[in-house]
Amino acid sequence: MTPKHDFLEGKKKAINSLEKAKSESKADEKILPILNILNNSGEYYTSSSCSGRIVLLEIPEIGDKKNAKFLGKWHRCIEFDEIISASKKAKKGQIWLLAQSSIIHVVAANLKAADKIIKIANASGFKNSGIKSINSKIICEICSTERLDTPVGKNKILLCNKEYLQLLVNIANEIIEKSTMKLLRLELNLKKYLSTYKTTRQ
Amino acid sequence: MTPKHDFLEGKKKAINSLEKAKSESKADEKILPILNILNNSGEYYTSSSCSGRIVLLEIPEIGDKKNAKFLGKWHRCIEFDEIISASKKAKKGQIWLLAQSSIIHVVAANLKAADKIIKIANASGFKNSGIKSINSKIICEICSTERLDTPVGKNKILLCNKEYLQLLVNIANEIIEKSTMKLLRLELNLKKYLSTYKTTRQ
Repeated sequence: MTPKHDFLEGKKKAINSLEKAKSESKADEKILPILNILNNSGEYYTSSSCSGRIVLLEIPEIGDKKNAKFLGKWHRCIEFDEIISASKKAKKGQIWLLAQSSIIHVVAANLKAADKIIKIANASGFKNSGIKSINSKIICEICSTERLDTPVGKNKILLCNKEYLQLLVNIANEIIEKSTMKLLRLELNLKKYLSTYKTTRQ
Repeated sequence: MTPKHDFLEGKKKAINSLEKAKSESKADEKILPILNILNNSGEYYTSSSCSGRIVLLEIPEIGDKKNAKFLGKWHRCIEFDEIISASKKAKKGQIWLLAQSSIIHVVAANLKAADKIIKIANASGFKNSGIKSINSKIICEICSTERLDTPVGKNKILLCNKEYLQLLVNIANEIIEKSTMKLLRLELNLKKYLSTYKTTRQ
């Protein structure tokens, strides 16, 4: 199989999965316009994405993502009480509050296209973007630098006081709002620089 | 100029800067063995690096790195009192405590070499590594996922209590220790997989 054939095969599969997610209302509405632009272009397809999220996580130790457990997960701004209520599911280990801005994995048809998408992403404020792999697929990651990674408790108990937890919630919400603004900027820039995207619809 | 000539010119300049930093004792001792292995290979040179650090930062708003001010910066584990004493320099804005694991920027001679270094980095635990740019230079970033990004105060005042701040300091120190271990693993893997590094000394 040629690299072009591989790309088109991969794209077909990825778009089928996305369509399935859309039909089951599992797709993230806020990021769909961007996924559509990329998937309608001849040079790219998207393999995974998140529009930005706030997460309450229970982890045995730092960096041990494999054994982490979600106590709460929201793709929107949250209320203070939602954290309190989610924290009640905790059992054992550290409890962390994370706010993560949007992330999109994009497969590029070639290195020139990969370079272009990284430049557009950077110009749209996604300053932590890069190429993650150039093996069988060229996988680009569009992501930003804003984040909150904070321990808030241990073994079921929240260790920070109410005022401080409210500050964390405010900052987490601010990261989600910033992330949404950046997605809009990315959408505009993709429309501007991927000008052929309508004519190359698969 | 050919790409190979550009690479060798860039390498010469980068190594001169590193030698200058070494002679002024400004180079980060903990990461030097890795920089030496990479710079002694024919396929790479290092353009910047940090062995991991704990930072107390004053920022006007999230993500505004440009206007951020260091209140304290340590490339080692810290004591609780060092944070208290550094926080006294604060004036206006949010105060954040960050712990960042090691980061190394490596220029690769070609894409095959870039792919190789990303694979070695991933296998050594640096799971957030990738290629940042493939323009005039192929710049790879070796970095890890462990981090702490936590607001601890606002407008001169620390908002979290003593017990909680001690927890943050412990976690920050744990990140530095993990980072040091990963550097040792990376050093071993570089020695193993860049087997020609001694014979291609520039």
